[in-house]
Amino acid sequence: MFRHQKELQFEVKVDKPDPMLAKQVQEVLGGQFGEMTVMMQYLFQGFNCRGNEKYKDMLMDIGTEEIGHVEMLCSLISQLLDGASPEDQAEAAKDPATAAIMGGINPQHLLVSGLGGLPTNSQGVPWNGNYIVASGNLLADMRSNLHAESQGRLQVARLYHMTKDEGVRKVFRKMLARDRYHQYQWMEAINELEEKNGVVVPSSFPPEAEKEAQEEAYKFWDLSEGTASKEGPWSQGTSPDGTGKYVHVENPQPQGQAPNPNVPDPALHHDLTEEKVPSK
Amino acid sequence: MFRHQKELQFEVKVDKPDPMLAKQVQEVLGGQFGEMTVMMQYLFQGFNCRGNEKYKDMLMDIGTEEIGHVEMLCSLISQLLDGASPEDQAEAAKDPATAAIMGGINPQHLLVSGLGGLPTNSQGVPWNGNYIVASGNLLADMRSNLHAESQGRLQVARLYHMTKDEGVRKVFRKMLARDRYHQYQWMEAINELEEKNGVVVPSSFPPEAEKEAQEEAYKFWDLSEGTASKEGPWSQGTSPDGTGKYVHVENPQPQGQAPNPNVPDPALHHDLTEEKVPSK
Amino acid sequence: MFRHQKELQFEVKVDKPDPMLAKQVQEVLGGQFGEMTVMMQYLFQGFNCRGNEKYKDMLMDIGTEEIGHVEMLCSLISQLLDGASPEDQAEAAKDPATAAIMGGINPQHLLVSGLGGLPTNSQGVPWNGNYIVASGNLLADMRSNLHAESQGRLQVARLYHMTKDEGVRKVFRKMLARDRYHQYQWMEAINELEEKNGVVVPSSFPPEAEKEAQEEAYKFWDLSEGTASKEGPWSQGTSPDGTGKYVHVENPQPQGQAPNPNVPDPALHHDLTEEKVPSK
Amino acid sequence: MFRHQKELQFEVKVDKPDPMLAKQVQEVLGGQFGEMTVMMQYLFQGFNCRGNEKYKDMLMDIGTEEIGHVEMLCSLISQLLDGASPEDQAEAAKDPATAAIMGGINPQHLLVSGLGGLPTNSQGVPWNGNYIVASGNLLADMRSNLHAESQGRLQVARLYHMTKDEGVRKVFRKMLARDRYHQYQWMEAINELEEKNGVVVPSSFPPEAEKEAQEEAYKFWDLSEGTASKEGPWSQGTSPDGTGKYVHVENPQPQGQAPNPNVPDPALHHDLTEEKVPSK
Amino acid sequence: MFRHQKELQFEVKVDKPDPMLAKQVQEVLGGQFGEMTVMMQYLFQGFNCRGNEKYKDMLMDIGTEEIGHVEMLCSLISQLLDGASPEDQAEAAKDPATAAIMGGINPQHLLVSGLGGLPTNSQGVPWNGNYIVASGNLLADMRSNLHAESQGRLQVARLYHMTKDEGVRKVFRKMLARDRYHQYQWMEAINELEEKNGVVVPSSFPPEAEKEAQEEAYKFWDLSEGTASKEGPWSQGTSPDGTGKYVHVENPQPQGQAPNPNVPDPALHHDLTEEKVPSK
Amino acid sequence: MFRHQKELQFEVKVDKPDPMLAKQVQEVLGGQFGEMTVMMQYLFQGFNCRGNEKYKDMLMDIGTEEIGHVEMLCSLISQLLDGASPEDQAEAAKDPATAAIMGGINPQHLLVSGLGGLPTNSQGVPWNGNYIVASGNLLADMRSNLHAESQGRLQVARLYHMTKDEGVRKVFRKMLARDRYHQYQWMEAINELEEKNGVVVPSSFPPEAEKEAQEEAYKFWDLSEGTASKEGPWSQGTSPDGTGKYVHVENPQPQGQAPNPNVPDPALHHDLTEEKVPSK
Ligand SMILES: [Ca+2]
Ligand SMILES: [Ca+2]
Ligand SMILES: [Ca+2]
Ligand SMILES: [Ca+2]
Ligand SMILES: [Ca+2]
Ligand SMILES: [Ca+2]
Repeated sequence: MFRHQKELQFEVKVDKPDPMLAKQVQEVLGGQFGEMTVMMQYLFQGFNCRGNEKYKDMLMDIGTEEIGHVEMLCSLISQLLDGASPEDQAEAAKDPATAAIMGGINPQHLLVSGLGGLPTNSQGVPWNGNYIVASGNLLADMRSNLHAESQGRLQVARLYHMTKDEGVRKVFRKMLARDRYHQYQWMEAINELEEKNGVVVPSSFPPEAEKEAQEEAYKFWDLSEGTASKEGPWSQGTSPDGTGKYVHVENPQPQGQAPNPNVPDPALHHDLTEEKVPSK
Repeated sequence: MFRHQKELQFEVKVDKPDPMLAKQVQEVLGGQFGEMTVMMQYLFQGFNCRGNEKYKDMLMDIGTEEIGHVEMLCSLISQLLDGASPEDQAEAAKDPATAAIMGGINPQHLLVSGLGGLPTNSQGVPWNGNYIVASGNLLADMRSNLHAESQGRLQVARLYHMTKDEGVRKVFRKMLARDRYHQYQWMEAINELEEKNGVVVPSSFPPEAEKEAQEEAYKFWDLSEGTASKEGPWSQGTSPDGTGKYVHVENPQPQGQAPNPNVPDPALHHDLTEEKVPSK
Repeated sequence: MFRHQKELQFEVKVDKPDPMLAKQVQEVLGGQFGEMTVMMQYLFQGFNCRGNEKYKDMLMDIGTEEIGHVEMLCSLISQLLDGASPEDQAEAAKDPATAAIMGGINPQHLLVSGLGGLPTNSQGVPWNGNYIVASGNLLADMRSNLHAESQGRLQVARLYHMTKDEGVRKVFRKMLARDRYHQYQWMEAINELEEKNGVVVPSSFPPEAEKEAQEEAYKFWDLSEGTASKEGPWSQGTSPDGTGKYVHVENPQPQGQAPNPNVPDPALHHDLTEEKVPSK
Repeated sequence: MFRHQKELQFEVKVDKPDPMLAKQVQEVLGGQFGEMTVMMQYLFQGFNCRGNEKYKDMLMDIGTEEIGHVEMLCSLISQLLDGASPEDQAEAAKDPATAAIMGGINPQHLLVSGLGGLPTNSQGVPWNGNYIVASGNLLADMRSNLHAESQGRLQVARLYHMTKDEGVRKVFRKMLARDRYHQYQWMEAINELEEKNGVVVPSSFPPEAEKEAQEEAYKFWDLSEGTASKEGPWSQGTSPDGTGKYVHVENPQPQGQAPNPNVPDPALHHDLTEEKVPSK
Repeated sequence: MFRHQKELQFEVKVDKPDPMLAKQVQEVLGGQFGEMTVMMQYLFQGFNCRGNEKYKDMLMDIGTEEIGHVEMLCSLISQLLDGASPEDQAEAAKDPATAAIMGGINPQHLLVSGLGGLPTNSQGVPWNGNYIVASGNLLADMRSNLHAESQGRLQVARLYHMTKDEGVRKVFRKMLARDRYHQYQWMEAINELEEKNGVVVPSSFPPEAEKEAQEEAYKFWDLSEGTASKEGPWSQGTSPDGTGKYVHVENPQPQGQAPNPNVPDPALHHDLTEEKVPSK
Repeated sequence: MFRHQKELQFEVKVDKPDPMLAKQVQEVLGGQFGEMTVMMQYLFQGFNCRGNEKYKDMLMDIGTEEIGHVEMLCSLISQLLDGASPEDQAEAAKDPATAAIMGGINPQHLLVSGLGGLPTNSQGVPWNGNYIVASGNLLADMRSNLHAESQGRLQVARLYHMTKDEGVRKVFRKMLARDRYHQYQWMEAINELEEKNGVVVPSSFPPEAEKEAQEEAYKFWDLSEGTASKEGPWSQGTSPDGTGKYVHVENPQPQGQAPNPNVPDPALHHDLTEEKVPSK
């Protein structure tokens, strides 16, 4: 069960409105790696967590924090849109300077949300549930979390340069710092899990269970011409878990057959004239 | 530019058809972490790669391999659907055993693809472009790649138990081995990049640029009751880059204001009766 | 079965083209509460209506009217785009005034529809079937209809200020009047249904069927700090159907357990080390 | 800012697992009117609320409660999936009884979430941001809220009959009671707002602003043959705000022109041979 | 403007309910090539049609017919679902025969639509606007129409075998006949347009405007090993418009450069260490 | 299995960057008829092709070519974005000319892809699997292919006028020529297939199998007032396969019943008061 406090986690006070920036900021609210994503991802991972109290508690701690980040960004966007009006648009036809700004506005900020944040990205695409992952395998999911915080911080860093507004930048600096901490946090959890279970997900399907395919776990198939990739640490030396040595295959040949599928039952209405004996 | 060879990368020969399994296998073809995702993700990362020949070549090598994995899974699904017919469905009404199996079939395998693989997941949701990421920051993207291969291998490992068909399992073992190699590969690349640039993405926005927010990069906000999370390596000790020491904040208080946004212009038709001076 | 007349329901004659406005108008054609939504919603409610001739006839009357509203908006958008050309875009690079206008154009109006209306919202997101509802419960659905007309009229009212074009405004005034009538219409139907069945949906699951949970139907859980919400009519007095008295719970405590789910079967590859007896 | 308590709002203890039911329950978790929808809808309405402390507080109270409902449903689904295993699927090929059950399982509950709730509906479609509305007009939004709780309670009532499990039904009864309360709550708020501003949204665009179109606000256009709809309270009498009298138009004629749009610029490549003078 | 008649275009009377079939039939109602698609596609093409009265009238004739096809399919699905009840699901746990059938039911037919048709395909994916096309070029669009009717008739033909119900089959035969007529219809229109303008879309961008690239319009690039494709009529002889002769290029070589993009501005935070002079 | 060469199929060298054009070009990369669509469509058709080596080889030849077209467009977009920076956005607030250009930029080109191509259309909507078709019926699919190349070439022709950049136009001319060839190619294949099997898809459901419905395959239902459509070749003469003569029905009457569906089981909670005997 959750509770809410009126104050924001961090202060959000923009120096002055900027509707074009409001449109861009939507990316880190409702985009693929926005705050809605990390919020829902950590909450679902926490809600679904089986076993391991320490991680479950930690996931709920940070998932709960992220709800507050969605709240902060809605507040930021509201302030950036402050004072905007549908009539500005009618003015735009007369004056290039106004038109320029109106052309950059998200029309849904006026028509749909009435000057509030939207559950969409910077191009207006609605946030959706396939942005998130909660697989029941902690190491797999923490790698997703580390990744999400990396993309999130990268996008905020880029946004940072899109404004000179000191009030906005102050909010972004908080977000950058938190995203930095969250990268540390997932790295620490990942290290702990890798030390316990090994570096390959899932550890419960070990190399020997791959049987005749086992050697494929060490081969680099060089399928794009040029061999610059030969110089990487993935092409030479030993795998991180010490189970094998890498092989760089320079001119790899297919190991399978050319597929020759059967002609289907006539009720599929394929209109093919060949006859083959169906396999069934 | 690309070229195609007729033979599959690995042999794909199922022992016997199994339309229910065909439906499940769609997850690793057209799902969030299926082969279409890694194929398109590595290709877009490679196409968009600026600088750094070694990584660009490597991305194109593996992206090109993954097109062939989509090809193999289409072949696998075609074989699992072999001999299925719309008429089986009409039979189902009469016989529970048939009905049981037909109930588990993806109707689009009959109606839409005529016994072929579909660009959808195991629930019929079409693959879409927001499954992938190509950000222009190599470390951020390689973390996504490591994560995608982790989820991918996890799902194939789970699928492995859904069938006793030795022919199918042989294909899965190849996929498990390749997903294992690809996890190694991205780990190696990540290690190399982290050594060069540090572990935080992006490295070009350093701690000192976060200014007054810098200390927030070391705090764990414990917002879910219970302090089990205090025992994790993210709550004590030094951050991996040695720039600060973690602080576990047990009863964190909000640092921001309670938001008090302005009442908008009447042309927004909010029907509010309060009047406030708009900020504009 | 349907028939079509060539004339539009109302006259649509814009004073002069305005491609930026054409982009905004897409919201009320193909957006969440646009004409496509009410058209498809009323038609599906009418097609699926079981029993009750009066409502079924009424749903088909209005659903049929709404097809004509989609037609009117396509005509409006075509006129707003009249004379636009791909070459305007090439001009834009040279001249800020032109660039300003082109920047605000929906590129699909040129590239995809060739100056016609699109089945998308103002941000280009395609209309989709989950915008609509037809549940088989009339009161539930009429509440949706009243709501849709409220949002629809709100958006048209906002759009009204985005243009000074008297021809466009004349069309909007017709739409505003019809949306007003449709609000009346659904209110009348709702009143009639509420008088017959009571105000709670569905009425066929009465309070006493909620058994031990019944008292929860009158409690306000105050989970956000501050008690301003205590002053509302939902916190004091009697429920509209007279079945109970409201209780404002100021510091509500959880009534459930802390979840403690079982560790799954190893075939789920969760890589957890705890062992618990699975419940199965 | 938010905080989390470990205990669930209400007790969730199923009598025994039922994976088929788990699939159905996804509808009220991640469907169009599931708990994710009301949670995100109330939170966004609260975050974006300008003015009016009483409503903002109330929205945050209930939005915060709904996060806990998502939590409860994840717990419910986890318990319904308890003990399920990928190997059950392999068994299914041999035994109709098992096959019957496996055919009804959501494969993503095994492959993707590892026995946890998913952010998708009962058909696997991911939850998305266009399920929700936060328009900045309180009356419009509260009508959406009343509607959402109506559909939500209707779906839970239907689900109630899909199981005989007393543990599950106990949870559903709590949800039915809360959905009943929430219907009361929005009704009370709606009444208060309608009394203050009138029943038409938005009230700030009054009848007289509709000018020449004003009479259209009282006409029923009977466009589907048959006049059963004439007997409804929307066809006779006075509008609820007393501004006009209804007119039932039995054989309504179009009032507009037949559209005759201009032939576009050749750069649109329409390949039409007619020439018309473009209007530009 | 449109009008509605109460009777269906063709009789729809199923012999007996069949909820599994109802699920499959959704594909031809709300799928990629279902009746919603042709309805919306022809209406948008008609609404947006500029010039050419004959085609515009024809598009409106058939678009209007298709609304009635959506109506018929909703009626068909309602009848196939007749008598289904949520309680059947609770029974399913006890009896494999019932479970088999319930496993094949679309849960949304019970929970969401209350036994009515849904605006979704056979896998529950909502219909969406990017299924349709209305480009403003008649020949391009009529090719889409011919294609849509081909896929539509193919799917109905497959569905035909999924049932032995004579009542259902009678409806399907009407649909097959109409889809046949509609294929003729678009073929006739296509022939007429091709005779007037030539076979290439758009005709207004003629071969000579392709300049130095013109010869590429006759080359087959054989990029998949094996030369079976050499024997096709696309590899030998003259193009249908007589403008050139085909060339089968057996071992085609790339004609472009290896891309070598610039390293971006540091504000993109790519973390690359190479320095290149940005081009700007 | 696939291989990659470093050089692009055709040279891609833009004269100078143009971020607004980059946004438009996304339509032909990741839009409904962009290169991602034809690439995935031909590959899936080739992967799923059963029987008929000549067509399978041809599909793989062209599918493989199209991967290289996605590559070329990513390169084109990267060059058009060259030198763009987040800081340009901050400048925009000060200067209308800059603002004009920034307003027209896709913010994801900065924030999400770091100056690379995106798997989205010109409005930011992600590419998705329901853009493509691979039905297992060659004639049906080749009609889709001809259509896709028609829309594709139309969009490129329109784009051609959106720039004066000779470098960009050179790339477009190659694309126009290839799209012209691909139109020829599918026409040739279609002719061959139609000669073998007849012009109606599927040919394996012949007129006589439509039984009592057969005559409906020759009737034009004139459901939109006006009879301009009577003059078309679809209203008079003989069907292309010579099986019947067209009939133009000027005032067509419904042939079906007015639907009168049963009232459902009370467990559906429809709250209807009528009682009818359920049919079950
Ligand atoms: Ca290489
Ligand atoms: Ca805690
Ligand atoms: Ca409160
Ligand atoms: Ca009527
Ligand atoms: Ca070949
Ligand atoms: Ca006509």
